[in-house]
Amino acid sequence: MEKHRENCIVLAAGEGKRMFSGSSKVLCEVTHKPMLLWVIDAAKSAGIDDICVVVSDADVKKTAADCHIVFQNERLGTGHAVMCAIEFLKERKTEDTLILYGDVPFIDKETIRESLRLHRNTEASATIISAVLDNPEGYGRIIRKSGEISAIVEQADADDASATIKEINSGAGWFSTEALIETLGMIRNDNNQGEYYLTDAVSILLRTGKKVSVFQASSSDVTLGANSPLDLLNLNDIASERAILKHLLNGVRFINRSGVIIGPDVEIAPGAEILPGSIIYGKTTIGRGSVIGPNSIIRNSVIGENSVINASQIYESRIGNYVNTGPFVQIRPDCKIDDLVKIGDFVEIKNSSIGKGTSIAHLTYIGDSEVGRYCNFGCGTVTVNFDGEKKDRTIIKDYAFIGCNTNIIPPVTIGEAAYTAAGSTVTKDIPDGALAIDRGEMTIKEGWGRKKLASYINKKDSVND
Amino acid sequence: MEKHRENCIVLAAGEGKRMFSGSSKVLCEVTHKPMLLWVIDAAKSAGIDDICVVVSDADVKKTAADCHIVFQNERLGTGHAVMCAIEFLKERKTEDTLILYGDVPFIDKETIRESLRLHRNTEASATIISAVLDNPEGYGRIIRKSGEISAIVEQADADDASATIKEINSGAGWFSTEALIETLGMIRNDNNQGEYYLTDAVSILLRTGKKVSVFQASSSDVTLGANSPLDLLNLNDIASERAILKHLLNGVRFINRSGVIIGPDVEIAPGAEILPGSIIYGKTTIGRGSVIGPNSIIRNSVIGENSVINASQIYESRIGNYVNTGPFVQIRPDCKIDDLVKIGDFVEIKNSSIGKGTSIAHLTYIGDSEVGRYCNFGCGTVTVNFDGEKKDRTIIKDYAFIGCNTNIIPPVTIGEAAYTAAGSTVTKDIPDGALAIDRGEMTIKEGWGRKKLASYINKKDSVND
Amino acid sequence: MEKHRENCIVLAAGEGKRMFSGSSKVLCEVTHKPMLLWVIDAAKSAGIDDICVVVSDADVKKTAADCHIVFQNERLGTGHAVMCAIEFLKERKTEDTLILYGDVPFIDKETIRESLRLHRNTEASATIISAVLDNPEGYGRIIRKSGEISAIVEQADADDASATIKEINSGAGWFSTEALIETLGMIRNDNNQGEYYLTDAVSILLRTGKKVSVFQASSSDVTLGANSPLDLLNLNDIASERAILKHLLNGVRFINRSGVIIGPDVEIAPGAEILPGSIIYGKTTIGRGSVIGPNSIIRNSVIGENSVINASQIYESRIGNYVNTGPFVQIRPDCKIDDLVKIGDFVEIKNSSIGKGTSIAHLTYIGDSEVGRYCNFGCGTVTVNFDGEKKDRTIIKDYAFIGCNTNIIPPVTIGEAAYTAAGSTVTKDIPDGALAIDRGEMTIKEGWGRKKLASYINKKDSVND
Repeated sequence: MEKHRENCIVLAAGEGKRMFSGSSKVLCEVTHKPMLLWVIDAAKSAGIDDICVVVSDADVKKTAADCHIVFQNERLGTGHAVMCAIEFLKERKTEDTLILYGDVPFIDKETIRESLRLHRNTEASATIISAVLDNPEGYGRIIRKSGEISAIVEQADADDASATIKEINSGAGWFSTEALIETLGMIRNDNNQGEYYLTDAVSILLRTGKKVSVFQASSSDVTLGANSPLDLLNLNDIASERAILKHLLNGVRFINRSGVIIGPDVEIAPGAEILPGSIIYGKTTIGRGSVIGPNSIIRNSVIGENSVINASQIYESRIGNYVNTGPFVQIRPDCKIDDLVKIGDFVEIKNSSIGKGTSIAHLTYIGDSEVGRYCNFGCGTVTVNFDGEKKDRTIIKDYAFIGCNTNIIPPVTIGEAAYTAAGSTVTKDIPDGALAIDRGEMTIKEGWGRKKLASYINKKDSVND
Repeated sequence: MEKHRENCIVLAAGEGKRMFSGSSKVLCEVTHKPMLLWVIDAAKSAGIDDICVVVSDADVKKTAADCHIVFQNERLGTGHAVMCAIEFLKERKTEDTLILYGDVPFIDKETIRESLRLHRNTEASATIISAVLDNPEGYGRIIRKSGEISAIVEQADADDASATIKEINSGAGWFSTEALIETLGMIRNDNNQGEYYLTDAVSILLRTGKKVSVFQASSSDVTLGANSPLDLLNLNDIASERAILKHLLNGVRFINRSGVIIGPDVEIAPGAEILPGSIIYGKTTIGRGSVIGPNSIIRNSVIGENSVINASQIYESRIGNYVNTGPFVQIRPDCKIDDLVKIGDFVEIKNSSIGKGTSIAHLTYIGDSEVGRYCNFGCGTVTVNFDGEKKDRTIIKDYAFIGCNTNIIPPVTIGEAAYTAAGSTVTKDIPDGALAIDRGEMTIKEGWGRKKLASYINKKDSVND
Repeated sequence: MEKHRENCIVLAAGEGKRMFSGSSKVLCEVTHKPMLLWVIDAAKSAGIDDICVVVSDADVKKTAADCHIVFQNERLGTGHAVMCAIEFLKERKTEDTLILYGDVPFIDKETIRESLRLHRNTEASATIISAVLDNPEGYGRIIRKSGEISAIVEQADADDASATIKEINSGAGWFSTEALIETLGMIRNDNNQGEYYLTDAVSILLRTGKKVSVFQASSSDVTLGANSPLDLLNLNDIASERAILKHLLNGVRFINRSGVIIGPDVEIAPGAEILPGSIIYGKTTIGRGSVIGPNSIIRNSVIGENSVINASQIYESRIGNYVNTGPFVQIRPDCKIDDLVKIGDFVEIKNSSIGKGTSIAHLTYIGDSEVGRYCNFGCGTVTVNFDGEKKDRTIIKDYAFIGCNTNIIPPVTIGEAAYTAAGSTVTKDIPDGALAIDRGEMTIKEGWGRKKLASYINKKDSVND
């Protein structure tokens, strides 16, 4: 492993109880991204990719799969959590270590980089990231003398004077790795809760005359965490509002913000338009001139230019340019839809590729298929990809014309420019340019319907089922 | 009938004209519950279940079906409305009578109970429920002398001093039943409108030296009524905001409040999540870990734990645990969906039971059916439950596998582990473990499609229909 | 051409670059109507229908198709734009000319008419429309002496005193046509940008002692333009809020405003109800008692009385009274749906007429068809209107009963009270009262399914595709 000058410990062992969540609190999502990943990605974006996550839960371990993981099996305070990572610290021997919290998602690259710069410039043993809050109630206050920090006073210990101080300790910050290792061994749990607090490390440094710097964050948002569903909604509201403003200023058009949720890893080209109720998240890219919504969901997908996604849901797929989708379409994972494809209403596509210019107008399911260019699917077409045992693939070549209510039972290949008659069930390959037809003769029984008419009219009231 | 110590008269004879509603104003809805039922349920929740509703409209009578109903055929004022209930009062001979208004929905249990306690403790002949409004314009003001009420001054009669008083008469309140009966006979209609006002009953009591108490409600919301669509929207906004806050504090997660409407009789377990655009109302229960929305409607239904209802509408049905529904599904009344069922896109189910673990993945209609456990429905399956005359039931037993685009024509039973071939029409019972197939041989006509290709390409522009 | 006393020039040659739009800025939409059409319609509603639009773009020309068009090929300022219309002015010889801007959409009839009245009453050579802004930064200020305008001072030239003036020049206003023609020739481009400014025309008039009046608009909204996506969102928010308030006060009910967008040319009868997420625009009319939404889109359509449009999209069609639509329906252009029709879920109708009382309950596509009264469509019916070459029409007469999963291949006529058996493909006419059936015998293979059961159970995990 390459030698890093700095590394990062993310404390992520909190329980989900107060969030009423089955899993850990740090997995609760802000604009559909787990808070922990906001924090890890902030560290990475600041150039710190040697990250140790302190967890107490297998799901969290899985989420942070590309980080170093240590388990904190007992929850004995923030100091104890960092102690769990002591081997990580000793092995690395970096100059400096950043401490972050997995449930404080808005920490950002600038705050991390600028606080590191201050930390280095002041040759500090520790650099606290502070923030100024209108309502500092509950937080540890930064006590300053002649501008320098002299102490951190917790809420419980605050006298009238310190209670009025609005600059608070976010808990996050930098330590000289050497000083951190040394000081961790000196923290005691002789307090009411019997816990080890990381703040005590700072107090010890101050007491022993080491240099402690304070970096005041430009926005108090970087200290916001979530301890309740109400807090989590607040974080989501802030993140949504920020995301919309960011994209607006970048040239994306919105006509109504209601219900719009855009994740932090979404890229939208200037000149795209997002209609209300659209939820766009994961690693998603949307091209210039495309119109998303209303009420579309797009997750981990690429949408090309000048495409329309109307009231549809798209997951883990690639959509080309000038593709018209919806209303009421679902594109399930692993689809590749080429340019100029038209997907009309009540269509589901799954794990398939659709060639350029193909039309799938209505009431159709295409699964596990490779479809060529300029094909036309009649209404009600079904690829019968599951026979109760296994899933086979359907191949449909260019210019094929699939009649309405056709069942296609794979493994099967429909040849180039082949036709299937409406209502057919295709069970074997169709040669290029052939017509497949599977249909009896239509029989007419005269007068049959007339007899039923009287009773039908009588029942008209219940017809609407 | 059991003897009650108190009863309640709800004035509900207002017209819907100003609401531009076809029916009475009291039937206008706040978060999808008629205002009248908010009022009746508040009285019931306070332990008062002997309720007389004064109506002028058969629809209102129907809505208040479990209450005593009297008709007010002419609208001659609030005093006249109460007079219409005079037989109800005389029969009951309760100690005290609560007067409420059917278009003032936010009256609550606490206000009713606490005002009754004051009424009893002060041995009052009447106890007015008052509220303090920032803008009291239009309401009758409570005039106090040495803290006690001395008069109610209507807006029209208010001098400069009384016009500034912000404590107003909500109109609702308690009367000693005996005093009410006696005083009602003394109200006169010698005013400009020629109407009988209930407020005059209070004035008569004050004039004749009877004790009148005033209970000041803790929130002015309890006096809010609706006289216009704008008022009604305001009531809806207040009710929505309150409902979301109540559920948030109870541990329900929301990531965006846009378009979320939750009725007052909805119960949601902590740890459920409600996505934007979800409308949940009637007697509905949602279990822990379930995710509702975006844009789902759920009415009078039970949703179990850890189920997903994505962009779907569910009416009067029961959904089990770990059920995955949507997007774009409608569950119509009288369905029972067991645990672990998967209902994919473009599926409608009506008046049917679906057994545990069954999969109905796409483009399927199931009506009037009993479906067993671990069945699999191919895409495009239809239960042909209506033949123009009557509706018959379909029985599908455990582990049945229904091929794509199968028509099932009841009355019919598909046996356990039976199969139907894709494209079949099932008209008679299928034995357990059998395969039913109804399909001709597929015929191939070589070259047929090739001939059509040229013209097809020429028409490609119009293909997207 | 009839002789007009006044005409109007709309400046509409701006680029779309700052809006990141492929076409001109004036085509950017506010509540789904291009800004240019807001401006043109305001002039028309004020009685001015002789309108010249100065454009630089073929799309704009097309949008303003019923106006006189002149091209401004170089963008040399507002004065130059008006000069491009000099022939228009000279031909008309109207008394007065109104100048409007195609990207300032909230100019209204009242402002136009009242400013004209002032212009005429004061016998002015020009009448500027001004507005008072809280933040006038960037606009030209109106300098007054003894109440009369003495100058317009641009932001760049403003001294401290004039910078504090909050009354600004909107740019729009009236000119005596003769004075305008004369003055246009006197504007110079000897400024930093080398452009010709229309404001200079006013300055010249003031300098030469002509009467210039100022009409102060009652709302500053009439001056709001859009130079960025953020501005455009702001205009949309204002327009949406106004539209909702207008309809509320007119007796339309709303229970939640989230995501509701209503265009300026929509008429909604009192007593209709609009649910959240509904987008209604173009020339659309909605009748009394109808309920739209949630999440419906209606464009250029007529919805009758007491109809329900639940989570559906309707384009360029006419829907009758007591029609129940949705959820999840698309009505594409050129449909006429008669009274009492029921359209259930997952139905698409296109270019078709549907007779009174017909029921189309689920999973059906009807295109290019004429359907009679009281027909019943079984689930999965498809009109196979496209055969790869041409589109033919289907005729279905009154009381016909179409069985489930029927394919109808036009040109074909299904007679009155005719029946089609489920799963049939109809390729030729069915006489009145006949039954058409196209179905093989169902064959049963005993024990076949049982053999598959074991493997089916093993695969259950992957069944949900």
